[in-house]
Amino acid sequence: MLMPKPALLTLGQGELRIDRNFAIAVSGLGDARVRSAANRLSTRIEKRTGLSFASGSKSAVLTIDCASKGETVQGLGEDESYKLMVTSEGARLTANSPLGVMNGLATFEQLVQPSSVEGFSVPALTIEDAPRFKWRGLHLDVSRHWMPIEVVKRNLDAMAAVKLNVFHWHLSDNQGFRVESKVYPKLHELGSDGLYYTQDQVREVISYARERGIRVVPEFDIPGHSTSWLVGYPELGAAPGPFEIGRTWGIFDPVMDPANKDLYAFLDKFIGEMADLFPDSYFHIGGDEVNGKEWSENPKVTDFKRKHGMLPAIGTPDKQALKLSNEKLQAYFNERVLALVKKHGKKMMGWDEILAPELSKDIVIQSWQGQKSLGDAVQQGFQGILSSGYYLDHMDSAGLHYSIDPLVDPKTKETLRLTADQKSRILGGEVCMWTEYVTSENVDSRIWPRTAAMAERFWSPMTVTDAADMYARLDLVSRQLDWYGVTHHASYPMMLARLAGSGPVAPLKTLADVVQPVGLSGRARAGRLSGHPYTQETPLNRLVDAARPESAEARRFSGLIDASAWAEVRQALTAWKDNQQTLAPLLQSSILRELVPVSADLTQVASLGLEALDYVAKHQKPAAAWTASANQTLVEAKKPKAEVIIAIVDPVTRLVELASRQ
Amino acid sequence: MLMPKPALLTLGQGELRIDRNFAIAVSGLGDARVRSAANRLSTRIEKRTGLSFASGSKSAVLTIDCASKGETVQGLGEDESYKLMVTSEGARLTANSPLGVMNGLATFEQLVQPSSVEGFSVPALTIEDAPRFKWRGLHLDVSRHWMPIEVVKRNLDAMAAVKLNVFHWHLSDNQGFRVESKVYPKLHELGSDGLYYTQDQVREVISYARERGIRVVPEFDIPGHSTSWLVGYPELGAAPGPFEIGRTWGIFDPVMDPANKDLYAFLDKFIGEMADLFPDSYFHIGGDEVNGKEWSENPKVTDFKRKHGMLPAIGTPDKQALKLSNEKLQAYFNERVLALVKKHGKKMMGWDEILAPELSKDIVIQSWQGQKSLGDAVQQGFQGILSSGYYLDHMDSAGLHYSIDPLVDPKTKETLRLTADQKSRILGGEVCMWTEYVTSENVDSRIWPRTAAMAERFWSPMTVTDAADMYARLDLVSRQLDWYGVTHHASYPMMLARLAGSGPVAPLKTLADVVQPVGLSGRARAGRLSGHPYTQETPLNRLVDAARPESAEARRFSGLIDASAWAEVRQALTAWKDNQQTLAPLLQSSILRELVPVSADLTQVASLGLEALDYVAKHQKPAAAWTASANQTLVEAKKPKAEVIIAIVDPVTRLVELASRQ
Repeated sequence: MLMPKPALLTLGQGELRIDRNFAIAVSGLGDARVRSAANRLSTRIEKRTGLSFASGSKSAVLTIDCASKGETVQGLGEDESYKLMVTSEGARLTANSPLGVMNGLATFEQLVQPSSVEGFSVPALTIEDAPRFKWRGLHLDVSRHWMPIEVVKRNLDAMAAVKLNVFHWHLSDNQGFRVESKVYPKLHELGSDGLYYTQDQVREVISYARERGIRVVPEFDIPGHSTSWLVGYPELGAAPGPFEIGRTWGIFDPVMDPANKDLYAFLDKFIGEMADLFPDSYFHIGGDEVNGKEWSENPKVTDFKRKHGMLPAIGTPDKQALKLSNEKLQAYFNERVLALVKKHGKKMMGWDEILAPELSKDIVIQSWQGQKSLGDAVQQGFQGILSSGYYLDHMDSAGLHYSIDPLVDPKTKETLRLTADQKSRILGGEVCMWTEYVTSENVDSRIWPRTAAMAERFWSPMTVTDAADMYARLDLVSRQLDWYGVTHHASYPMMLARLAGSGPVAPLKTLADVVQPVGLSGRARAGRLSGHPYTQETPLNRLVDAARPESAEARRFSGLIDASAWAEVRQALTAWKDNQQTLAPLLQSSILRELVPVSADLTQVASLGLEALDYVAKHQKPAAAWTASANQTLVEAKKPKAEVIIAIVDPVTRLVELASRQ
Repeated sequence: MLMPKPALLTLGQGELRIDRNFAIAVSGLGDARVRSAANRLSTRIEKRTGLSFASGSKSAVLTIDCASKGETVQGLGEDESYKLMVTSEGARLTANSPLGVMNGLATFEQLVQPSSVEGFSVPALTIEDAPRFKWRGLHLDVSRHWMPIEVVKRNLDAMAAVKLNVFHWHLSDNQGFRVESKVYPKLHELGSDGLYYTQDQVREVISYARERGIRVVPEFDIPGHSTSWLVGYPELGAAPGPFEIGRTWGIFDPVMDPANKDLYAFLDKFIGEMADLFPDSYFHIGGDEVNGKEWSENPKVTDFKRKHGMLPAIGTPDKQALKLSNEKLQAYFNERVLALVKKHGKKMMGWDEILAPELSKDIVIQSWQGQKSLGDAVQQGFQGILSSGYYLDHMDSAGLHYSIDPLVDPKTKETLRLTADQKSRILGGEVCMWTEYVTSENVDSRIWPRTAAMAERFWSPMTVTDAADMYARLDLVSRQLDWYGVTHHASYPMMLARLAGSGPVAPLKTLADVVQPVGLSGRARAGRLSGHPYTQETPLNRLVDAARPESAEARRFSGLIDASAWAEVRQALTAWKDNQQTLAPLLQSSILRELVPVSADLTQVASLGLEALDYVAKHQKPAAAWTASANQTLVEAKKPKAEVIIAIVDPVTRLVELASRQ
């Protein structure tokens, strides 16, 4: 029932009863985080059992022994291991640092279950546990859509539950600059629509994260992705401006001007301010997706390039030469910025694009391009983390993400050929939540529970890869998060009720339960085709926004087919087939009208499934024409409509195959 | 779709579109509450539509005109009426007071629905509305189980949504004294287990309520129900003490000593302090359920009675004389307290028991004894409100509560024979939430949505009595409350998941969906019979605590029988019959074991229902022996087990009747 799975677990005999006399004793040299983590655990167990622990002197049921205070600022690679021993007499948690204690307590919390003997209990066992990777992150974009501090906090709680230890806070982008700057106040005043974190709030988040064993790494994306900076400070840009906050998605032209020496003075002060605000030793400068257009078009920039040997001193450069010169210009910029980041005591981090052999080797590359790019980086001596394969906005399944390993080529399934030393420079991975099509209302449902599968990938031994087993445990983690106020479950019926208006929610839910949103590119395409491309102002209140990234119903249905549970398969198909009848009146409202073809497809797919099921039941092979026609229907039904796909098309296709292969 | 139904509604042509340009303009003489109510409405419509309203100058879509500031302290009978006109061009809300504005905005909020044309809209209409009763309350006991301030606040929001206007805060009882007293700090320090509201928090709640058009009436229950006072101040009691906070339920012996003149000095200061803290003009002194035991046994009290002519000067009084003398003593006490309450500028209020002809007529009687008791009171010239029939802890249906009218004898269904003047002294009613078997986790599910039905009883014309229509609208209100953070829906799956442990929740939910908790007396009886009578410390974490007071599934099923929807009836019965199979493994845990007979009953009842359905389908009358045996089984199945009843027994009994009457 644990997620992530511990490195080593030995079951014992019997169980430790959890009743109202539960109490925790703390000993050793741990700092105040140990006591507050213990108190949090008590409150959580109270919630998860419905018990009220008696106050007053009681003998400890769980004793915690922590050997050190831990580092003042949580460090990369700080000891996170712990040992937990549970017998019917009591439980003992030992760790070298408060981080280990927190991890052990997260494990203990998941172990509390209804007992077959009386009330609640924890099974007797011994766990020795430590993470596989030291960098286990969640990246959250708060620029494209604003995420209030409550969203951040409850996600930090959820991260801690699955032992993630880095919150990567994507704080600026074209669509919003989200931190108060006292040095350059026009950054947040003009760049955020008033939606930014005050410095006090930032400190609150950092402290909240530290209490939970999580580092906070800020990202300020430069020199591209920076339109929101240029609104208040157009003089930093490579084009004259004026600039407005970006409202659409994609790669923008506005970019900082590396030829402007005032830019570095600005960045010096700014990075200094932020280096003071964010205590973590890493500072993420983004560095991705510069299209170079404004650099190519700006004569001063061209002069600068010629002067610095990035372009020949004379002549009109061709496209390829311009592209190369822009890459060199960005490398120049990165070197200047690296010097500033170092000056303010930080290590620099950026996306693949910042990689250049000249940069010092203590930077960390975050790879959205894949294991190969990451492997190249560590071979060159850089450190890196993997994010390719962990993009939540692609709306892939937990199983798919789970299968991606930072050390394994996803195509060949072979472990990267790296020396031990090179491997050790692959620090871990980060799950990425980009928020073009996500709001504070549905962000939790995009992050959770899928992120827990990736958290296990980063924590547990490389050999832990059984997807079925993972899914069983994922369901439990998903329920656990409800107690933290994570809204991945709670917002769903509300968003559906909104769409149903005064009509019944049930038939809409039947449909919604078996559809999945298309990913980022599908949504962008749909927006373009509709003639109303998505902007920051487009309401995200349709079925596609309520639907979950991975249909649990479809997965369950697929399992029924695997198990040849034909009665239940028939029941499910019948319900889907009949749903259109009750759903139809609802689909007259303008906001649901787009679902008419989706509902029709569901009926058709379910009907086909029932026909296939009849063939299977009768052990009768259908005519080739039937199979051909069925498959054609299924291919059509698989195409996204209203930006959702019907997740039972694949299992029904399997059913048709089963029928025709008899 | 409105609840409560307005007094007068005329539908117009077309609809008013609600899009991102929605804006509200405020004019007139209203105070700051009008603007903040308007802002709240905007935010709520944003949530309920998923739109983001653009900021900046826009022309108003809704204009509000408020004719006065309203009273500084919200008064009983202050004008709450409003007029709302909506056309396709715009909406206009006019009211004489901020209270009317808030009521009108609550109406407007419920009118926003998905449009058949585009996005969201409000139908064109004109509403003229005013309440039938001026006292429309919710009473919440925070003594028997502690209710944190968040619980109070979200319930105030919910109250405002259905136009309730009095929050009756039951702040002290045997089991806890819940307000900080600076004058007598041992009250909260020793009487509350540390669970009390600070005076700042009380002010926060009062201000929150005022912003929502809700008066806050405090209750300090004396002279009985006062054990928690006596823990810190035993000298006030009629027995020597020492006293401990009450942990069990029922009528306790400890009582204040009316013969002790220091008591009145104490109450004078205490009432003075609380009269300053609570601005409302009413002050509730409880006054219920004094058993008189300690008075009868205390010689000093007996002397006092003799001296004041409540007992003959000599001789040993018999039981009846003692009882009468105790009633007289309480009447004496009430008169003394009334003088103090008046001295501090308040009007007194109490339960039926305080009623004595000698008391001045400006007190308000809260009747838990019924319309007759209430009728007597107003005939004597007192004012009164009804609570009998509105007790949520009895676990009755919304329909039952809805059928109770303060002016109608519930037995004869006849309107009370009262003069217009007498009728006008029936100020309204109060829904009562007593919390012996309720915690902050499930309290919302006990209050909502049933309270909305009673809110309509108090607000809407007496002629609005169609239960089917009420239920359709109740469902919508119930969904609306989700947006306020009311947890009546959200806590249910979490409480079930807790019980399921690492097992599947679905089969447990199937059972839970068709059971209902027994009421107060059933739970007390079950506790006694189990040998573990309930106390304040008994965990309320069983199925009975998660189950909803009224099974929506059973109501739906009953409707299917009414509609002769036999296919769906069969489907439902089959699912219930088959549920035991998947549920059984779960029932091995100790906390679910008690449900074994409940699940067995459900299977048996469903099987019977299927048999009855077969007879109905075949138009065949069953043998008399079958019917007799079926009915016996149903009678047995109707008996509570594990403190729940199976709510489909009644509809299945109807099905058996249908079969046998063919």
